[in-house]
Order: sequence, then C-alpha cells, then structure tokens
Amino acid sequence: MQETSRRHTAKGKSIGFVPTMGALHDGHLSLIRRSKDENDIVVASVFVNPMQFGPNEDFDRYPRDIEGDREKLEKSGADVLFIPEAKMIYPQGFATRVHVDALSERLCGAFRPGHFSGVATVVCKLLNIARPTRAYFGQKDFQQTVVIRRMAEDLNIGVDIVVCPTVREPGGLAMSSRNAYLGAEERKAAGAINGALQAAASVLRSASGTVPEAVSAMKSVLDKEQLISEIQYAGVYDPLTLSEAADEGKEKLIAVAVKIGRTRLIDNILI
Amino acid sequence: MQETSRRHTAKGKSIGFVPTMGALHDGHLSLIRRSKDENDIVVASVFVNPMQFGPNEDFDRYPRDIEGDREKLEKSGADVLFIPEAKMIYPQGFATRVHVDALSERLCGAFRPGHFSGVATVVCKLLNIARPTRAYFGQKDFQQTVVIRRMAEDLNIGVDIVVCPTVREPGGLAMSSRNAYLGAEERKAAGAINGALQAAASVLRSASGTVPEAVSAMKSVLDKEQLISEIQYAGVYDPLTLSEAADEGKEKLIAVAVKIGRTRLIDNILI
Repeated sequence: MQETSRRHTAKGKSIGFVPTMGALHDGHLSLIRRSKDENDIVVASVFVNPMQFGPNEDFDRYPRDIEGDREKLEKSGADVLFIPEAKMIYPQGFATRVHVDALSERLCGAFRPGHFSGVATVVCKLLNIARPTRAYFGQKDFQQTVVIRRMAEDLNIGVDIVVCPTVREPGGLAMSSRNAYLGAEERKAAGAINGALQAAASVLRSASGTVPEAVSAMKSVLDKEQLISEIQYAGVYDPLTLSEAADEGKEKLIAVAVKIGRTRLIDNILI
Repeated sequence: MQETSRRHTAKGKSIGFVPTMGALHDGHLSLIRRSKDENDIVVASVFVNPMQFGPNEDFDRYPRDIEGDREKLEKSGADVLFIPEAKMIYPQGFATRVHVDALSERLCGAFRPGHFSGVATVVCKLLNIARPTRAYFGQKDFQQTVVIRRMAEDLNIGVDIVVCPTVREPGGLAMSSRNAYLGAEERKAAGAINGALQAAASVLRSASGTVPEAVSAMKSVLDKEQLISEIQYAGVYDPLTLSEAADEGKEKLIAVAVKIGRTRLIDNILI
C-alpha cells in the first residue's frame, strides 16, 4: 500500500483516503464520492480495529461484509481497496500508543476508556501507510474527527482532514453500521435520537433559548422513549474543546450517546 | 522543511536525517558523515526538546551553541540545518503523546518518568517533518534507539533507523554534550563508567563468566570511584527487550547510568 501511494504521489497525483471498518452504508459512500471529486486517486481501507474496542464491546459481532463492501466501493469510484490483516497492523511485539490528551477523555471517551487511543493509533498508522493528500471522515463520529485532526496536526502527518456531513435515513436516524443490530421496534425508537438533537437545536435557535433549556428539551425527548435503556450523555458542547458549552459561544455541538438494548448509538449536530 | 524534503524526494534523492539537541561533538559528527556516505542529502536538526526533560532536570542549563553547531555541520557535509522553535513543535493546544510501552519504563525510563514519551513524540514529529530515507542515532543512547526503532516500525513511518557506534574520548569516556558539565576531577572519575563496562565484558567473554559475576565486577569498579554519587543502574540486559539478561542469551547489552555530582551520565556496550 505504501509503495502504491508513493508511486501515485511521485507522478504528482493527489490521493484521497477513506479509512473504514467496513459494513459500508451510504454515509461511507458519500465520503468516497467526495474524495473522488477532490482527488486523482481514491483509496479506501476496511479494518475492524481491535485496539479501539473495549473488552466488553462488540468487536466480535461487529458486522463484516467484505464482498458487499468491495462492490459498493467499486461502484462509488474507489480505485484502491486496502484490507490489512490484524497481525500486519499489530505484529508481535507491537508496543506503541498514540494518545490525544483531554479530547480523548470526554463524551464517548468517558464511557469507552482507551477507545480514542485505539482510534488515534490506527489512524496514525493508516495515514502513514496510505500517505494521502486528504483523508475523509463522517461527522457522525464527531469526537473522532476532533481527536484525529489534533493528532494529525500534532504529529505533522501532513494530511488534510476533511469532515463530511452525516448521512441520515429518511426518518432522520444517522446511518451507522451498528444500525444493523437494531430490531424493527428499536429502529423506530432510535428516531428519538435525532428528535432530541432537533429539539435542542430549536431551543438554541430561539432568541432567548439557553443551554440548560436545550439540554432539558433533549432529555425529555429521550426520556419518553421506553426502548432507550441508558442515556450516556446528551448535551451542548464547545466543538473545539468538547467541554460543556457556555451560552455566549458561537458554534455549538449538540451531541448524544444512548443505548437501545445492547446497541450503543451516537449522533450530533453543529449549530 | 517538509516542502524541502518533498522536493528532494520528488527528484529521487535519498535523505539522511540526524536529529540532535545541539552542542555537537564528534559523536554527532560521525552520524553526519555516515549519513553523507549513505544518502544524497543530509538534514540535521537542532532542537532541545522540552518534552523529554523532567521538571528537575537540566533543560534550562543544557548546553547550547548554535553558531558552533552550524559551523561543524557545514564542515561535516550537512546540506540542510533545521532549527525549529519550541512554539512551532508544540503550538498552543498541542495534546498528542506517542508512547512505547514496556521499553520506555525500563533502565533510564525508571529514573526519568515521561522521558521516552517525550523522545518518541518529538522523533515521530521530526521524522514526519524531515521525511528521511534513513535516520541516524548514536548507540550511546541505546534505549532511545530501541524505543525509536519500535515507534517508527509500529507507526509505519517508513524510515530506516541506523544506529552508529559510540564515539569515545581517548580515555574511553563516551562523548556526550553533558560532559561539558564535568569539572577536571569529575571527568577523570567518569572514566570509571567505561572501565566498569569493560570489566563486565571481560567476565562475560571468559568461558565460565556468568551475568551475576559480570554485574558485581561492574559494581566494584563503580563503587571504588568516590565522585560517583549514585549508581542508577549497572547491569546486563537483553538488547531487544531491555529486561535482565539470562546467561544463555547470545547478544548482551552491558549498560550503566550514574550521577557524578549533578551530572547524569550513561554508557553501554553490546557484546
């Protein structure tokens, strides 16, 4: 992969890179298409990264569909598909961790210790392997984009990190490979997540709306949904630091993480 | 710097990189000459990296001599000298740490907590900035070379790490920028460090010599020297894992760290 990229770069070609964990949906494919618009060569990777899963998380049952992925990537215009094996990414003796302080500990990080070290480490590796001009990530995983952008800048990787809008189902549910875990009733219940984000947004867009009012509007939408078994966080944050937003700040991140049955779902909007 | 390297690489030139903290001595210059032999372009950097110094260490008084360094580098054949400012390497908001587990905690790491995270992080950055074909380090800082090699391989940086022999004063003292801290008597006393390494080596080279015998031979040499105020470690190690060597192992690292007055000195040999 490194040689392939070097060859393209030596010819002056730009490379757009879309790292994924596979089980591709229209959100991923929107990244491929954006990358195709902006670069000469589009490289996609499929790697379900064990380092970013906790011991009690869904690594084993995470959906895998390499044949389906390959077909979708080809149709969407990807030029290169990189599918490393775990023992290639983490060979015997592997001992290095890339950690982004503070940003990794907040929001999802508080519920998934080590998760963002796993993300930062594997993305650092994949960027060094694929050596792209630009790399594309979905806004659905907002905290991930903040951590990766910080890591890539801090380590002088020399890549543009491009964040693309979340792609949603007709009912507003953010596309996620984990939606495959949901039964029909659960999928309906998951609509409350985007409902909660919209409720908070409409409070904040009103002239007198405050952050605490927005948060309670969110929570009341989520509380009404019986199938939501846990609200991990639901709040309004500073999109740069991920700390709680003050009323006076300009751009705000409204973000939520809940569990529906065993399935953990996240979503966010920026306003 | 990144652009300069990209330009040379695009023309098919190989780049040899010698990262230093300045106050250059013949050890550093041997790296420059080796790099010159093996590459088209030689890049040296001078950066006294605050992240690898502990709060009570010698960051402030670490010797600095940019004009002298520049002259020596020019004479030794370096083509590019990179002197970043600390605020460029660690800008406001910098938050990323690269850590190599286990290898960073042993030997010097036990006495300098955080030191090797500082080393791994800055070398990761410098390699991504200078984008060399090969990077050169002195064997005197043996643990550093092990940590950096592991980091560069684990993060797929795509550089050859070349370790060059320690250059010594006529009396055997390993060259180090920190030797400048030593008074005349202390400098004489520091000869015991190499003496101890040689004593251990001669035990291990004898047919029946064991590791414990080698260690006590070292310690008795060091104990005799009144000006050595602290022996931080003095032992025989596995050069790959840095854990204590078994008698049956093939290659062995004999390594020592002592303090003479306020000055901490390290040295090692491989047999």
